[in-house]
Amino acid sequence: MPNALQEFRDYRAKMNERLLGADNLVIKRLFNLDTNTYAEGALSSRTKEMLGLVASMVLRCDDCIKYHLEKCFEQKVSTPEMLEIFSVANIVGGTIVIPHTRRAIEYWDLLQAGGEQAG
Amino acid sequence: MPNALQEFRDYRAKMNERLLGADNLVIKRLFNLDTNTYAEGALSSRTKEMLGLVASMVLRCDDCIKYHLEKCFEQKVSTPEMLEIFSVANIVGGTIVIPHTRRAIEYWDLLQAGGEQAG
Amino acid sequence: MPNALQEFRDYRAKMNERLLGADNLVIKRLFNLDTNTYAEGALSSRTKEMLGLVASMVLRCDDCIKYHLEKCFEQKVSTPEMLEIFSVANIVGGTIVIPHTRRAIEYWDLLQAGGEQAG
Amino acid sequence: MPNALQEFRDYRAKMNERLLGADNLVIKRLFNLDTNTYAEGALSSRTKEMLGLVASMVLRCDDCIKYHLEKCFEQKVSTPEMLEIFSVANIVGGTIVIPHTRRAIEYWDLLQAGGEQAG
Amino acid sequence: MPNALQEFRDYRAKMNERLLGADNLVIKRLFNLDTNTYAEGALSSRTKEMLGLVASMVLRCDDCIKYHLEKCFEQKVSTPEMLEIFSVANIVGGTIVIPHTRRAIEYWDLLQAGGEQAG
Amino acid sequence: MPNALQEFRDYRAKMNERLLGADNLVIKRLFNLDTNTYAEGALSSRTKEMLGLVASMVLRCDDCIKYHLEKCFEQKVSTPEMLEIFSVANIVGGTIVIPHTRRAIEYWDLLQAGGEQAG
Repeated sequence: MPNALQEFRDYRAKMNERLLGADNLVIKRLFNLDTNTYAEGALSSRTKEMLGLVASMVLRCDDCIKYHLEKCFEQKVSTPEMLEIFSVANIVGGTIVIPHTRRAIEYWDLLQAGGEQAG
Repeated sequence: MPNALQEFRDYRAKMNERLLGADNLVIKRLFNLDTNTYAEGALSSRTKEMLGLVASMVLRCDDCIKYHLEKCFEQKVSTPEMLEIFSVANIVGGTIVIPHTRRAIEYWDLLQAGGEQAG
Repeated sequence: MPNALQEFRDYRAKMNERLLGADNLVIKRLFNLDTNTYAEGALSSRTKEMLGLVASMVLRCDDCIKYHLEKCFEQKVSTPEMLEIFSVANIVGGTIVIPHTRRAIEYWDLLQAGGEQAG
Repeated sequence: MPNALQEFRDYRAKMNERLLGADNLVIKRLFNLDTNTYAEGALSSRTKEMLGLVASMVLRCDDCIKYHLEKCFEQKVSTPEMLEIFSVANIVGGTIVIPHTRRAIEYWDLLQAGGEQAG
Repeated sequence: MPNALQEFRDYRAKMNERLLGADNLVIKRLFNLDTNTYAEGALSSRTKEMLGLVASMVLRCDDCIKYHLEKCFEQKVSTPEMLEIFSVANIVGGTIVIPHTRRAIEYWDLLQAGGEQAG
Repeated sequence: MPNALQEFRDYRAKMNERLLGADNLVIKRLFNLDTNTYAEGALSSRTKEMLGLVASMVLRCDDCIKYHLEKCFEQKVSTPEMLEIFSVANIVGGTIVIPHTRRAIEYWDLLQAGGEQAG
């Protein structure tokens, strides 16, 4: 698996464990609620992950983008679909989103190239 | 048709006409590109309008929210689906999105109650 | 009680009821978690409400600002303390926060003048 | 003078007086520094007001936009120049800036129509 | 002292010196005003540093977060208090703040582990 | 040429090529429109690049800042002018912009020291 994928996942897992181990109830519940938000419902998990991705892009958080790219990859979002998500994010959010889109397509290509799905 | 719907549409139409009549090529093309962004493609217009809505919510622009609510209404997004879009926006964007969600549900209810689809 | 206070509280209460009545579990839990966040803990509710206010100010959400102003008023934050919260928000967030500060001091004065504490 | 201009100016003046009268040194100095920022220097006041306007537009603060529109009007920025400022703001900041641009062109037209320069 | 602490402090000190040496009066005064903002007043420096931290978190600036973490460490903010500041930031600002919180807790742990107070 | 300049340019060029090669019409047109926005018009390209820079600074996107720094360097913006652009960005956007300003002055110094103009 490409290094950049592994590093992102490892750091994320380690620090989430640290945060959740800190015994702050609000943070624990927010993490839990975050997971529930993307569960199958009136909208599919697939659609919700796309919503989460576009929201992360216009708010311009690279780590959130990577996370939702992984989830979209698991949900078998195609590359043409992904590019249309990018196009909505760039039109709504403006050219300020372009640098994040460059990093997003790079990460997406890594996922396609050899990424196994995150556990 | 409820007043709040009509007023929003009228002001929007009048000022867009003013802006487009001002003969600035970049603005004209951006408006044009904006329309193209939500056209049927690898993703359906319906999905793209939901993406546009969630992006507008986390960026907290009430007029953009109203516009995409109208488009989602045209695309027959259901109320349970709409509430799940709201939930993604509020989880990703935080409680700072709640006041915009209050105004969004109010506008959505107006659309349901008697709104004809925007021309 | 001044009208502006009553109107804000009534609209907020009505639309929160609408949102919570809509039976979306994520939204319900987020509202619940929001309340818990400001409970007495390692930090006092008073300090947390000040934190909530400054966060609302730099994110520039007038309704969130009003809400936390009410809570700070209940917590007996003094006007000189309030002005120091405003000063932190304006230094960190820049002059873009000034218009929100103008509306904040107006609302704060209303609370001082005759506002009863929100129920 | 059109009402919308007068109302904006009056409210702004009244609340600035309230804030500055509150005797918080940081706020006073920030207001003072804000004025100095746009003084003639290596860049002209005219250019700096245009910079202040585009910054206000991408940060999407309507009152800040109005203020810098007034200053640009005083500095005899032309309407074609103004539209190019709008175009930069909309390209960098995205379509989320459009509703603010609608209100900006409306205010700009009011200034052209009958606005006397702010004192 | 851990490397990450030293590197952050060194780069910050070097570039601040560069900026302040550039002889732009507005920037110099803003830096000066920034220092004054957190001075003992109606609110304690300790409370103000917590306000500065939560503001930096919801605006999602990692370097600002590190700076205020150092200041909170100097002010002997405890880890349970810190986690409640994090919880307010994450509730108000949403899950988009989580990646910054992961880096914040890592930096906080470094400060606890061996960090001497910044000069 | 300093490494940091070359690395930024190479990565940007490579990923833009990747994005534009992906055959999404909206993204292609947005890139094209972006270029047109800064063309000579009622305002000079020089002024527009300064507008693009200040917008990028208050929105706090380091890569966008670097790009517009390069363009301002090509347009022979002087260092005292650059510092006044920085001062507007820091006053409007607040101290949250300072870390980006530290990185901006560092990149500007690299451009002055040995940067050839980007092709």
